[in-house]
Amino acid sequence: MSDNIPALNGAESLVTTLAASGVNLCFANPGTSEMHFVAALDRIDGVRCVLGLFEGVVTGAADAYYRMAGSPAATLLHLGPGLGNGLANLHNARKAHSGIVNIVGDHAHDHVRFESPLKSDAEGIARAVSHWVRSSASAADVGADGAAAVQATRDGALGRIATLILPADTAWSAGGRAAMARPVAAPTAELGAVPAAARALKQLGPRAVLLLGQGGTRSEAALHLAHAIAAHTGCRVLAEFYNARMPGGRGRPAIERLPYMVDAAVAKLAGCETLVLAGAVEPIGFFAYPGKPSQLKPAGAALLTLAEPHHDVLAALQALADELGAKPVAIAAAPGQPAALPTGAITPESAAAVVAAVLPEQAVVVDEAVSSGRGFGVPMRHAAPHDWLPTMGGAIGFGLPGGVGAALGAPGRPVLVLEGDGSAMYTVQALWTMARERLPVVVLIFANRAYRILQGELAGVGATISGDKATAMLSLGQPALDWVALARGHGLPGVRVDTNEALAKALRDGFASGGPCLIEAVL
Amino acid sequence: MSDNIPALNGAESLVTTLAASGVNLCFANPGTSEMHFVAALDRIDGVRCVLGLFEGVVTGAADAYYRMAGSPAATLLHLGPGLGNGLANLHNARKAHSGIVNIVGDHAHDHVRFESPLKSDAEGIARAVSHWVRSSASAADVGADGAAAVQATRDGALGRIATLILPADTAWSAGGRAAMARPVAAPTAELGAVPAAARALKQLGPRAVLLLGQGGTRSEAALHLAHAIAAHTGCRVLAEFYNARMPGGRGRPAIERLPYMVDAAVAKLAGCETLVLAGAVEPIGFFAYPGKPSQLKPAGAALLTLAEPHHDVLAALQALADELGAKPVAIAAAPGQPAALPTGAITPESAAAVVAAVLPEQAVVVDEAVSSGRGFGVPMRHAAPHDWLPTMGGAIGFGLPGGVGAALGAPGRPVLVLEGDGSAMYTVQALWTMARERLPVVVLIFANRAYRILQGELAGVGATISGDKATAMLSLGQPALDWVALARGHGLPGVRVDTNEALAKALRDGFASGGPCLIEAVL
Repeated sequence: MSDNIPALNGAESLVTTLAASGVNLCFANPGTSEMHFVAALDRIDGVRCVLGLFEGVVTGAADAYYRMAGSPAATLLHLGPGLGNGLANLHNARKAHSGIVNIVGDHAHDHVRFESPLKSDAEGIARAVSHWVRSSASAADVGADGAAAVQATRDGALGRIATLILPADTAWSAGGRAAMARPVAAPTAELGAVPAAARALKQLGPRAVLLLGQGGTRSEAALHLAHAIAAHTGCRVLAEFYNARMPGGRGRPAIERLPYMVDAAVAKLAGCETLVLAGAVEPIGFFAYPGKPSQLKPAGAALLTLAEPHHDVLAALQALADELGAKPVAIAAAPGQPAALPTGAITPESAAAVVAAVLPEQAVVVDEAVSSGRGFGVPMRHAAPHDWLPTMGGAIGFGLPGGVGAALGAPGRPVLVLEGDGSAMYTVQALWTMARERLPVVVLIFANRAYRILQGELAGVGATISGDKATAMLSLGQPALDWVALARGHGLPGVRVDTNEALAKALRDGFASGGPCLIEAVL
Repeated sequence: MSDNIPALNGAESLVTTLAASGVNLCFANPGTSEMHFVAALDRIDGVRCVLGLFEGVVTGAADAYYRMAGSPAATLLHLGPGLGNGLANLHNARKAHSGIVNIVGDHAHDHVRFESPLKSDAEGIARAVSHWVRSSASAADVGADGAAAVQATRDGALGRIATLILPADTAWSAGGRAAMARPVAAPTAELGAVPAAARALKQLGPRAVLLLGQGGTRSEAALHLAHAIAAHTGCRVLAEFYNARMPGGRGRPAIERLPYMVDAAVAKLAGCETLVLAGAVEPIGFFAYPGKPSQLKPAGAALLTLAEPHHDVLAALQALADELGAKPVAIAAAPGQPAALPTGAITPESAAAVVAAVLPEQAVVVDEAVSSGRGFGVPMRHAAPHDWLPTMGGAIGFGLPGGVGAALGAPGRPVLVLEGDGSAMYTVQALWTMARERLPVVVLIFANRAYRILQGELAGVGATISGDKATAMLSLGQPALDWVALARGHGLPGVRVDTNEALAKALRDGFASGGPCLIEAVL
């Protein structure tokens, strides 16, 4: 961009900079201090604005958008408290290695000297989840700061969180100068560990695990390479439990994920002498439990990093396959037959079979079903090809916003959100954005009317209870949430089902509608 | 408590400590790392637990609870992201000078060395809104740390935010030792400024303003003293725009609040030569605007601090009245007649008249009506005696949780929540807690289907817009939220009204029911 476009204020220079730098979508929940930015979005073309009624919707949508589009969206948030409301999903986005440019309005420089009600520590809050934080000093800096923020979202093949704080006077003052982020560089390939990895896999065969994570699970090509390497060497291939985006379904290699439960993960890695990390990190338990290990690998097992998450993991796997002479192998059909459509009462297992049977081609599945979602792995191997996006980072509230962001990040593809009823409540306001933007999102709520996972965790930590109070604290049954009413309240059609036949019909109808809908599956 | 109660784990020692220290209510949204605390709440009597489906519900309820009960509740939150979700209402609580003990579970000490999905900077996030932060080192410390946290919530007559981070191993390990917070000390009276304040008010009369804030507006007695001082000296009395709790209605002095709008506030203070601050701070604009001042008082006006917010403002006002020889004065009926019940279409003004007419005695009114709530001041002078609790700190999302906390903090008193439709969505999940706990809360939603205040602010900052994009960003009309359905979805009865007659009936029915309900008033 030219430096001499006249008469831009700071906000206008930022919108111009974002558009020129390829940031063409802004998820927004603005307040007073962002009004000049809102006006600039209105006046200058190139950045589409999508409104969320809560900041967690905004940040969760930006996370999923990045996972599908591969480039960052902006968010627009209101001072420290607005950023705080978006923090949990920024935590998730950080763990997903998603790139996001947060624009946080703040008080004008002259105003922040005084104790006003909304004075807050926006920078302190931002640092807890951001890789990069800057507060603009003047309108003349805002464009360059915006370009620097876009650049700061890039971490090789993956993304990072950049937060630009915009004091109101830097937005409203004249003297803005638009800038442009540098072009995206190719991700780094680090191939030094290829020979050692090849030797380990060949020598150890099934006593080696090729562990895929983050960068290594996003592309179908990487999964095929891993599959070929395993066929050639006899090593085992596993993926991390959480992967920001993972292709699955028919014709794709079925890569098993490390289990969530500590005991099961330890058992899965038993006998492994070397873990070759392909875009993965050392496997660590989600939580600690009394008497159970944090580190999941056998005590003596070696870690060998083929590629770090932000490296070009695909190139590293290709080099490894070349070094080994591993040739592409055909993907056999998943063992067993696709389950016949189950009938009768819905269980998590039957719902997985129904979803696998009716999922349309190239759907994006956002998974925040928590306890109800654990059984999807095997049935989904028979499903139509799809991408799978789980909640990264473990902060509940990604699922519904994730549906918004996935639909906007992958235009034309149907989206299915698998949601627990407890989980859905954290950012339930996302339903309204689905309705407003008429997004092709089918929301499937697993209504078990409890924090089911915590009922398990309460046992898992060895806590013993004597009475009804703890039981009540983990129950959502009194009153039961009425999800059909909640959908209608947000402007969405909804239907309640309690048989698998009705579930299959509701899913098919939902996908056929091309718009958003909600299905409450009563378990 | 004795130090030698055997066989407590850390979590049990904390529950025992809280109960012994007068913290008898815990608003909770727990996760795995808090399961031992949940088990301890179950096993040990003395701390009642109220569940929220989102952390902002938990922290907002704790704020309102403190404002009514005058003593802190605990919250139970899940690691950094859970604390993040509660941050906006902790910001508000901090500005309200509410005392809250946050208990934030974290990973076990041995686990936090590793990069796990939920690893987060809980301490960094806590510091942004807490006056006191500590992370327990061992189970043996948890009881003493809990007692220190309770003590840290006390700031003279007002409260503060204390956050105790509880690594999971400190909760589950044996060796817990219960403790007890020190008894509450009497708030400090600082009377040194009394003679100077008396002189200023006597000499200046109407050119002096006695400005009440925070501690000075909570008690009816303080308002009567201020009224008597004004009658004696001819000074003007104003209250800060935001006051955490302010008695109002018939028989109470009608203390005018400083206006929200900068121009109006500046006009209100015009001609003032000295502001005597009684539990108040210097008046500062909520936001900065191009060309408008941040400081609202006339440039040459003196500030004279009679009492800081955490001082015993009532004692200071009593001393000032004594110094002046000001005698109690009878409260005249508010000028004018109570408006006849309006009929026909609902406006913010007509709704205020209806509310003033039907409000039951000793109601608690939680005000987050934002743009729709500005006209309540004058009509409410005719209403039955009540307490008024606005959103402090300006972070939207206090209102519905505030209804929960007010009902629990003032048992037996009816609660009315005045809510904007945009505002209500930030913590809409609070409706479920009202239903679950069968709280006597009537929620009145002003459905103008827009971020009306931002439409005004967009003009206020001088931003000019050319097209439809900004208009759309501030409109909530497509689709319109269906508040009756949202209420039903959360387990609450709801009714939609579009005339003042129907509004009056719905309010009366709601208060008569003794339970929660929601009224959507379509403007």
